[in-house]
Amino acid sequence: MDSTALIAMVSIFTAGITIAVGAIGPALGEGRAVAQALAAIAQQPDEAGTITRTLFVGLAMIESTAIYCFVVAMILIFANPFWNQLGAAAGG
Amino acid sequence: MDSTALIAMVSIFTAGITIAVGAIGPALGEGRAVAQALAAIAQQPDEAGTITRTLFVGLAMIESTAIYCFVVAMILIFANPFWNQLGAAAGG
Amino acid sequence: MDSTALIAMVSIFTAGITIAVGAIGPALGEGRAVAQALAAIAQQPDEAGTITRTLFVGLAMIESTAIYCFVVAMILIFANPFWNQLGAAAGG
Amino acid sequence: MDSTALIAMVSIFTAGITIAVGAIGPALGEGRAVAQALAAIAQQPDEAGTITRTLFVGLAMIESTAIYCFVVAMILIFANPFWNQLGAAAGG
Amino acid sequence: MDSTALIAMVSIFTAGITIAVGAIGPALGEGRAVAQALAAIAQQPDEAGTITRTLFVGLAMIESTAIYCFVVAMILIFANPFWNQLGAAAGG
Amino acid sequence: MDSTALIAMVSIFTAGITIAVGAIGPALGEGRAVAQALAAIAQQPDEAGTITRTLFVGLAMIESTAIYCFVVAMILIFANPFWNQLGAAAGG
Amino acid sequence: MDSTALIAMVSIFTAGITIAVGAIGPALGEGRAVAQALAAIAQQPDEAGTITRTLFVGLAMIESTAIYCFVVAMILIFANPFWNQLGAAAGG
Amino acid sequence: MDSTALIAMVSIFTAGITIAVGAIGPALGEGRAVAQALAAIAQQPDEAGTITRTLFVGLAMIESTAIYCFVVAMILIFANPFWNQLGAAAGG
Amino acid sequence: MDSTALIAMVSIFTAGITIAVGAIGPALGEGRAVAQALAAIAQQPDEAGTITRTLFVGLAMIESTAIYCFVVAMILIFANPFWNQLGAAAGG
Amino acid sequence: MDSTALIAMVSIFTAGITIAVGAIGPALGEGRAVAQALAAIAQQPDEAGTITRTLFVGLAMIESTAIYCFVVAMILIFANPFWNQLGAAAGG
Amino acid sequence: MDSTALIAMVSIFTAGITIAVGAIGPALGEGRAVAQALAAIAQQPDEAGTITRTLFVGLAMIESTAIYCFVVAMILIFANPFWNQLGAAAGG
Amino acid sequence: MDSTALIAMVSIFTAGITIAVGAIGPALGEGRAVAQALAAIAQQPDEAGTITRTLFVGLAMIESTAIYCFVVAMILIFANPFWNQLGAAAGG
Amino acid sequence: MDSTALIAMVSIFTAGITIAVGAIGPALGEGRAVAQALAAIAQQPDEAGTITRTLFVGLAMIESTAIYCFVVAMILIFANPFWNQLGAAAGG
Amino acid sequence: MDSTALIAMVSIFTAGITIAVGAIGPALGEGRAVAQALAAIAQQPDEAGTITRTLFVGLAMIESTAIYCFVVAMILIFANPFWNQLGAAAGG
Repeated sequence: MDSTALIAMVSIFTAGITIAVGAIGPALGEGRAVAQALAAIAQQPDEAGTITRTLFVGLAMIESTAIYCFVVAMILIFANPFWNQLGAAAGG
Repeated sequence: MDSTALIAMVSIFTAGITIAVGAIGPALGEGRAVAQALAAIAQQPDEAGTITRTLFVGLAMIESTAIYCFVVAMILIFANPFWNQLGAAAGG
Repeated sequence: MDSTALIAMVSIFTAGITIAVGAIGPALGEGRAVAQALAAIAQQPDEAGTITRTLFVGLAMIESTAIYCFVVAMILIFANPFWNQLGAAAGG
Repeated sequence: MDSTALIAMVSIFTAGITIAVGAIGPALGEGRAVAQALAAIAQQPDEAGTITRTLFVGLAMIESTAIYCFVVAMILIFANPFWNQLGAAAGG
Repeated sequence: MDSTALIAMVSIFTAGITIAVGAIGPALGEGRAVAQALAAIAQQPDEAGTITRTLFVGLAMIESTAIYCFVVAMILIFANPFWNQLGAAAGG
Repeated sequence: MDSTALIAMVSIFTAGITIAVGAIGPALGEGRAVAQALAAIAQQPDEAGTITRTLFVGLAMIESTAIYCFVVAMILIFANPFWNQLGAAAGG
Repeated sequence: MDSTALIAMVSIFTAGITIAVGAIGPALGEGRAVAQALAAIAQQPDEAGTITRTLFVGLAMIESTAIYCFVVAMILIFANPFWNQLGAAAGG
Repeated sequence: MDSTALIAMVSIFTAGITIAVGAIGPALGEGRAVAQALAAIAQQPDEAGTITRTLFVGLAMIESTAIYCFVVAMILIFANPFWNQLGAAAGG
Repeated sequence: MDSTALIAMVSIFTAGITIAVGAIGPALGEGRAVAQALAAIAQQPDEAGTITRTLFVGLAMIESTAIYCFVVAMILIFANPFWNQLGAAAGG
Repeated sequence: MDSTALIAMVSIFTAGITIAVGAIGPALGEGRAVAQALAAIAQQPDEAGTITRTLFVGLAMIESTAIYCFVVAMILIFANPFWNQLGAAAGG
Repeated sequence: MDSTALIAMVSIFTAGITIAVGAIGPALGEGRAVAQALAAIAQQPDEAGTITRTLFVGLAMIESTAIYCFVVAMILIFANPFWNQLGAAAGG
Repeated sequence: MDSTALIAMVSIFTAGITIAVGAIGPALGEGRAVAQALAAIAQQPDEAGTITRTLFVGLAMIESTAIYCFVVAMILIFANPFWNQLGAAAGG
Repeated sequence: MDSTALIAMVSIFTAGITIAVGAIGPALGEGRAVAQALAAIAQQPDEAGTITRTLFVGLAMIESTAIYCFVVAMILIFANPFWNQLGAAAGG
Repeated sequence: MDSTALIAMVSIFTAGITIAVGAIGPALGEGRAVAQALAAIAQQPDEAGTITRTLFVGLAMIESTAIYCFVVAMILIFANPFWNQLGAAAGG
C-alpha cells in the first residue's frame, strides 16, 4: 500500500500547487484588462457596448488558462488514471 | 496508520499553501480594478452606473480564480477522496 | 503518539504561513484601492459619496481573499478534521 | 511495481507544474493585449473592427503557448509512452 | 517529552515568521495610502476632512490583515490547542 | 530496468519543465508586440496593413523560440535517443 | 537538557529573523509616506499643519506593524512560555 | 551501464533546461523590438521600408542567441561526444 | 559543552543576519525621504525650515526600525538570556 | 571510469547552463538597442545611415558576451582539457 | 577544540555576510539621495548651501545603518564574547 | 586521482558559471548605452562624432568587466595553478 | 589539521562573497549619482563646480560601504585572528 | 593531501563567483552613467568636455568596485595565503 499512498500524496500536493500557481497569472491579467476597460469607458462612454463586449471575450480567453489548471487539478484529485490503474492492480 | 498520517499532513500543508498563494493574484488584480474604477468615476461621474456594473462583473471573474483555490483547499480538508479511500481500506 | 504530533506540527506551521502569505496580497491591493480613492476624492469632491461606496464594496471583495486564508488557518488550528479523526482513533 | 509508481508520481507532478507555470505567461500577455485593445478602441472607435480582428489573431498565437503546455500535461497524464511501455513490460 | 518540544519549536518559529512576513504587506499598503492622502490634502485642502476620514477607514481595513497575523501568532504562543492537548495527555 | 526507469523519469520531468518555462518568454513578448500593434493601428489606421504584416512576421519569430522548446519536449517524450539506445541494449 | 537547548536556539533565531524581516516593510512604507509629506508641504505650505498631523497618525499606524514584530521578538527572548514551562518541568 | 545512464540523464535534463531558459531572453528582446518597430511605423509610415529592414537584421541577431542554445541542446541529445566515447569504450 | 556552543553559534549567526537584513529597509526608506526633502527644498526654498524639521522627525521614525534590529543583535551577543541561564546551569 | 564519467556529466551540465544563462543578457540588451534604433530612425529618418552603423557596432559588442559563453560551452564539450588529460591518463 | 573552531567558522562567515548584505541598502539609498541633491542644485543653484547641508545630515543617518553592520562584523571578528568565554573555559 | 578529478569538476563548473553570470551585467549595460547613443544621435545629429567616440570609450569600460570574467574562466580551464601543482605532485 | 583547513575554507569563501555582494550596491548607487550629475551639468553648466564637488563627496560616502567590505575581506584573508590563534595553538 | 585539495576547490569556486557576481553591479552602473553622458552631450554639446571629464572620473570610481573583486579573485588563485601556508606545512 506504500506506493499508492505516495501517489496520493503527490497528487494532493500537485493539485493544490497547480491551481494556486495557475491562479496568479489569470488574476493579474484580468485585473489589468478590467482596469483598462473602466478607463476606456470613462474616456469614450459612447463605445461602452463595444468595449464591454471585447472585454468579456478577452476575459474568457484569459480565464481559459485558469480553467486548464483547474481541470488538471480536478483530474488529479477525482479521475487520476495512475491511481485507478495501480488501485485496480493492487485490488486485482 | 503511518501512510494515512502522511496523507493528512500533505493535505493540511497543501490546503494552506493553495489558498495562501492563490489569494495573492486575485487580491492584487482586484485592487487594480477597484483603483481604476475609482479613477474612472472621478473622471466621468455621469457613467458611474456603467463603470460600477462593469467593475462588479470583472471582480466576479477575478474572484473566481480565488474561489477555485478555496474550493480545492476545502476539498482537500473536508472531502479528500484519497483519505476516504485509504481510510475505508484501513478500516475495512 | 508520534503521528499526531507530526500532524500538529504541520498544522501549526501551515496555519501561520497561510495567514502570513495570504495577508500580503490583500494588504497591497487594499492600499492601492484606498490610495486611488483618496486621489479620486481630491479630484472630484462632489462624487465623494459614490467613490466611498464603490471603495467599500471593493475593499470587501479584496478582504474576502484574506478572510479565506484566515478561515483556513482557524480551521487548521481549532477544527482540524484529520487531527480529530486520528485523535479519536488513538483514543478509541 | 516500484519504478512504475515512481514514473506515475513524476508524471503527476510534472503535469501539474507544466500547466501551472505555463499559464502565467499567456495570462499576463493576453491581459496586456486585451487592455491595449480596449484603450485603442476608446481612442479610435471607427477602427474597432480592425482592432478586434488583430486582437483575436494575436490572442490565438499567445494562447498557443498555453495550449502547448496543456497538450504536454495531457500527454503525460493520459498517453504517457514511458508508462505504457514499462507497463507492457511489467505485464508481459 | 520529545514531541512536545518539537511542537514548541515549530510554534515559536511559526509565530515569528507569521508576524514578520505578515507585516510586510500592510506596512507597504498603509505607506502607499498615507502618501496618497497627503498628496490629496495638498491638492484639495478643503476636502481634508473627507480625505482623512476615508483614510482612517482604509487604514483600519489594511491593518486588519496585520492583526489577523498577530492574532494567529499570539494564539500559537499563548493558547496553542495542540500544545495544551498533548501536554494534558503527557501530564495525565 | 532501474536505469531505464530513471531516464524515463528525467525525460518526463524535463519535457514538462522545458515547455512550461519556455512558454513564459514568448507569451510575454507576443503580448507586448500585439498590444503595441493595436496602439499603432489606433494611431495610424491608414497603415493597418503594413503594421499587421510586420506584426505577423515578428510573432512568427517570437513563436519560433516557443517551438524550439516544444520540439525538444516532443523529442524527449516520443523520440528519445538515449531511451531507444538503452532499451535496445536492455532488450538485446 | 537537549530539548531546552533546541528551543533556545529556535527562539534566538526566530527573534532575530522576526524583527529583521519585519523591519523592511515599515521602513519602506514610512519612507514613502515621509517623502510624500515633504512633497505635499512644498506644494501647499499653508497646509503644513494638517499634512504633518495626518503624517504622524499614519506613521504611528505603519510603525505599529514593526512594533508587533518587536513585541513578538521580545516575548520569544525574555518571556518565552514554552521555555518557562519546559524549564519548570526539567527543574521540577 | 550505470555511468552511461547517468550521462544520458544529465544530457536530457541539460538539453531541456538549456533551450527553456535560453528562450526567455530572446523572446522578450524580440517582443520589445517588434513592438517598437510597430510604433515607429505608425509614427513615420514613409520610413516603413528602412524600419522593417533594420528590424529583421536586429531580430536575426537576437534570434542567434536562441539558436546557440538550440544548437547546444541538439548536440547534447543527438551528437553527445561524451556519450559516444563512453559508449564506444563500453562496447569495445 | 556542546549545546552551549550551538547556542553561541546560532546567536552569532542570528545577530549578524538581523542587523544586515534589518539595515536594508531603513537605508532605502531614508534615502527616499532625504531625496524627496532635497527636491522639496529646491521647489520651495522658503519652507526649508518646515521641510527639514518634518524630515528629521520622519528619519527618526524610520531609523527606529533599524535600531530595533540593532538592539536585538546586541542583546543576542552581549545579554543573551538563554546563554546566561544555560551557562549558569552548566557552571552550577 | 567513474571520475571521467563525473567530469563528463559536469561538463555537459555546465555547457548547457553557460549558454542558457549567458543568452539572457545579450538578448535583452540587443532587443533594447534595436528597439531604440527603430525609434531613432522614425524620429530622424535622415540619419538612418549613422544610426544603423552605430547600431551594428553596438550589437557586435553586445553579441561578444554571448559569444564568450558559446566559446566556453564549445570548449567544455569538444575540447575539454581536463577530460583529455584524464582520458589519456586512463588510457595510458 | 572542535566547538571553538565551529564558532570561529560561524563568526567568520557571519561577519562577511553581515557587512556584505548590510552595504547594499545604504549604498543604494545614498546613491538616490546624492543623485537628487545634484538635481536639486541644478534646479535651484541659490539654495546649494541648504541642500548640501541637508544632504550631509541625511547621508550621515543612512550611513549609520551601514556602520551598525560594520560594528557588528568587527565585534564578531575581534571581540567575540562567545569565543572569549569558551576559549577561557578551554584554556582554564 | 580522486582529488584531481574533483578539482577538474569544480574548475569546469566554475568557469562556465563565471562567464555565464558575468555576461549578464555587461550585456544589459551595453544595451542601455547603445540605445541611449542612438537616441542622442537622433536628437543631435551634428554631435554624432562626439557621441560615438564617448560611446566606444564607455563600451570598452563596460566590456572590461566581461573580460575579467572571461580571463578568470580561461585561467581556470587552461592555466589552473591548483591543477598544475597537484598534477605535478601526483605525477612526481 | 582538519579544523584549521575548515577555517581556511570558510575564510576564503566568505572573503570572496563579501566583496562580490558588497560591490553590487555601491556600483549601482554610484552609477545613479554619476548619471544624475551629468544630467545636472547639462541642465546648469554654470554650476558644474558645485555639482562636481558635491558628487565627489557623495561618491566618497557611497564608496565607503564598498571599502568596508574590502577591508573585511582583506582581514579575513591576511589577518584572520581565528586562524592566527588556532594556528598558534596547533603550532604551540 | 585531502584538505589542500578542498582548499583548492573552494578557492577556485570562490574566485569565479567573486568576479562573476562582482561584475554585475559595475557593468549596470557604468551602463547607466554612459547612457546619461550621451544624453547630456546631446542636450548640451557645448559642455561635452566637462561632461566627458566627469564621466571618466565617475567610471573610474565605479570600475574600482569591479577591480576589488578582480583583485580578490586573483589573490585567491595565485597568492592564496592559506594554500601557501598549508602547502608549506604539508611539504615541510
